[in-house]
Amino acid sequence: MSTSDDLYAVADFCLIPMGTGEPSVAGYIAECQRILEKSGLKYKVCGYGTNLEGPWSEVSKAIHDCHLAVHAQGAPRIATDIRIGTRTDREIAPGTGNEAKVKRVEEILSK
Amino acid sequence: MSTSDDLYAVADFCLIPMGTGEPSVAGYIAECQRILEKSGLKYKVCGYGTNLEGPWSEVSKAIHDCHLAVHAQGAPRIATDIRIGTRTDREIAPGTGNEAKVKRVEEILSK
Amino acid sequence: MSTSDDLYAVADFCLIPMGTGEPSVAGYIAECQRILEKSGLKYKVCGYGTNLEGPWSEVSKAIHDCHLAVHAQGAPRIATDIRIGTRTDREIAPGTGNEAKVKRVEEILSK
Amino acid sequence: MSTSDDLYAVADFCLIPMGTGEPSVAGYIAECQRILEKSGLKYKVCGYGTNLEGPWSEVSKAIHDCHLAVHAQGAPRIATDIRIGTRTDREIAPGTGNEAKVKRVEEILSK
Repeated sequence: MSTSDDLYAVADFCLIPMGTGEPSVAGYIAECQRILEKSGLKYKVCGYGTNLEGPWSEVSKAIHDCHLAVHAQGAPRIATDIRIGTRTDREIAPGTGNEAKVKRVEEILSK
Repeated sequence: MSTSDDLYAVADFCLIPMGTGEPSVAGYIAECQRILEKSGLKYKVCGYGTNLEGPWSEVSKAIHDCHLAVHAQGAPRIATDIRIGTRTDREIAPGTGNEAKVKRVEEILSK
Repeated sequence: MSTSDDLYAVADFCLIPMGTGEPSVAGYIAECQRILEKSGLKYKVCGYGTNLEGPWSEVSKAIHDCHLAVHAQGAPRIATDIRIGTRTDREIAPGTGNEAKVKRVEEILSK
Repeated sequence: MSTSDDLYAVADFCLIPMGTGEPSVAGYIAECQRILEKSGLKYKVCGYGTNLEGPWSEVSKAIHDCHLAVHAQGAPRIATDIRIGTRTDREIAPGTGNEAKVKRVEEILSK
């Protein structure tokens, strides 16, 4: 799923439409979910961002396409914060990176 | 819950211990959850960060205290990314800010 | 300058006014510089954020006060991304944290 | 420089090597500058991140290649925070996006 030319990326992004004249952004974020659904990548909406993971280039393209879609909806400017991580110490089974991190923390706390 | 002197903050933070000699961070993040539990603030662990909300000064202090705890566990350096939002167009019932954002997106998508 | 109760923080923040009806944000960011100037903390405007450092509680309060000022200018909602770091392996002379990081990289590259 | 298929991106990223056993990261960041130099994109090292801009796909690839290089230097895990913005309300002359933002703020403050 990842070669040395395309690292497997575990990410989260928070997209903010600017200059829209209204403080609500839920309509734009919903549109992003439709884009992510089409991307085929594993994603999950959280309170302050959306978890997303896959080969780096595909994760990047999916976020880019969210920008395209939100611009098409009328937002003249967009600022996005992306957190993105890669590791070479072990293999991540595709689609399991973000979930596994939560599980490891829960296991430690349950002891 | 928030006065003009202390805005209500809906936030998410991702704390990264540095110089620890091991790539795993789950033990440090678990320790942060114990600190957050004591803070009395509403929080939720997500795949690439932890949702946290409350009066700005308390949210900031809770994250600061996570740094103190992770330093105490042996991490000589810490880098944290915080996303933090405030709004004055409407009241946020304490503890509902992050959840409400997810719900609004889900409502739009279910139509 | 920092005690165990208030870690010295080297930070950078990017404040984004939302729902303003205009894509430009320079006026809001200029107002933030006036707030930071009053804070007495060391700061520097960069292309995609503002470097800021000092005791954690003061850094946090300065960013909070930028939110207050930007709300007062008419922005109903604000989303800010903060990168904040602390370290216990060595002392940081007040106001030198961000500059020193750039210098060390430049020294290595000039070799 | 940017088509609807590849938005022009004004960005900043902060790369953090994890599990390295030493709190200092300057050597890794210097290596990233060498990668960015080769990319041909406009970049500038700041205190808490590196400004970078160009077509979205090239900006993304440059940051990906920094991850590859830092892994090659021995870091088993990397976490990066990327701030990335696009706009459709006006054209950005290639390489001027981040600088222009600082200038506009300075112009307002000098009045």
